[in-house]
Amino acid sequence: MGITLIGVEGMPLVGEGDDIAYLIIKALNEGGENLLDGDIIVIAETVVSKAEGNTIDLEGIEPSPEALDIAERTGKDPSLVEAILGESSEIIRVGHDFIVSETRHGFVCANAGIDESNVDDGLATPLPRDPDGSAERILQTLQEATGRELAVIISDTQGRPFREGAVGVAVGVAGLSPIWDRKGERDLYGRSLQTTRVAVADELAAAASLVMGQADEGVPAVIIRGYPWKHLRSAGSVKSLLRPRELDVFRD
Amino acid sequence: MGITLIGVEGMPLVGEGDDIAYLIIKALNEGGENLLDGDIIVIAETVVSKAEGNTIDLEGIEPSPEALDIAERTGKDPSLVEAILGESSEIIRVGHDFIVSETRHGFVCANAGIDESNVDDGLATPLPRDPDGSAERILQTLQEATGRELAVIISDTQGRPFREGAVGVAVGVAGLSPIWDRKGERDLYGRSLQTTRVAVADELAAAASLVMGQADEGVPAVIIRGYPWKHLRSAGSVKSLLRPRELDVFRD
Repeated sequence: MGITLIGVEGMPLVGEGDDIAYLIIKALNEGGENLLDGDIIVIAETVVSKAEGNTIDLEGIEPSPEALDIAERTGKDPSLVEAILGESSEIIRVGHDFIVSETRHGFVCANAGIDESNVDDGLATPLPRDPDGSAERILQTLQEATGRELAVIISDTQGRPFREGAVGVAVGVAGLSPIWDRKGERDLYGRSLQTTRVAVADELAAAASLVMGQADEGVPAVIIRGYPWKHLRSAGSVKSLLRPRELDVFRD
Repeated sequence: MGITLIGVEGMPLVGEGDDIAYLIIKALNEGGENLLDGDIIVIAETVVSKAEGNTIDLEGIEPSPEALDIAERTGKDPSLVEAILGESSEIIRVGHDFIVSETRHGFVCANAGIDESNVDDGLATPLPRDPDGSAERILQTLQEATGRELAVIISDTQGRPFREGAVGVAVGVAGLSPIWDRKGERDLYGRSLQTTRVAVADELAAAASLVMGQADEGVPAVIIRGYPWKHLRSAGSVKSLLRPRELDVFRD
């Protein structure tokens, strides 16, 4: 089995109101490439937020006393801290230069996923408000324009506990179920499989990140071709990647 | 930029004393494939441990009182718990059906990385004793046999806090540095990059996992072709992926 990762090159800088699906198809066509049945399109969350006009003007923010306090403990800009608090439903850990919180969507990540890279000075991009919805809209446009059966993943680059370095993860999905549940399957020796739930959408996002790099408007979208995902074809939600709070031993 | 993931198909079940590098080259040749300069070979840790004769006979283990206690709390087999304790330097969390510990190598993962799948009944495979060393030996043999400049990653499938499902991660590396440190680089708007450290080896392992599946002796090795890693060419160690305990806010 072979899988190919193809960067969508030549996309312009994305601004508010842009149609990401259209920009992807245009860039692919200009590069002599087309979408095929089964292609999975991974798109960096920054460009989705920017296209949706979902940016935060840090200069217009008045930090609360809580934000001023956390800013002092972390060395972060008080306006950015206030923006992080605004995106968060709960602060989980405050480190010496970061804040781990649960976002309003339920993601546990650093700085509520707010990105200050690849956006105009003074602005920051939070995660898309409804990443599954954004993925679904892009998927519908891509499928209508091409007649192909596709899936869309919106990705972010996030750190994690215990391991250094950030990796690509899925923050929105459409057209496929993000978890491959292999319960009941057998290994090569006929024994039950031990790891039965694989976070395929996160692995796809990590793979795409290798092509995107982090200057993610250079290559903000990646086509993953040849991954067989018929067994995952369903109306999935990224929420199935989020561990329920009561099952997570690393939450207080 | 395009990257191709090629599964090494047709490898036999691996047993003690087998030369993994030789088996990979043989299977590739029989499939009409060759290694090229710049290829990264990702190998499932289970087959490395088995080739090194590093298996645990669970039936020959006498559980300690601590193992019996944890077995009762987790519902796990007492002999397996004893094996997990033996592989661990510290127990970090005990859940209702799992044990998160730090292994002797420094990995924080569930069940000390001991695998009961894809090995004979009554046996379990721990992580390789010295995964970087194993990767280095395989790399040397592959490079001598082919004359190509390569890198090797030994991978495992592990769960993580906060997110459901397991993903491929690197547990050993040779020939490349696992972290891409982009400090000092600029984004498309000329601002300093926010995420400067990317865990490339983990992203490569996650990508390979898409091809391996979890029945990992079916496709226990994957060639990653076309990923430009000249900037990572160094004598790396997987230890640079492990966050120092004092910097991790999720350790007590």
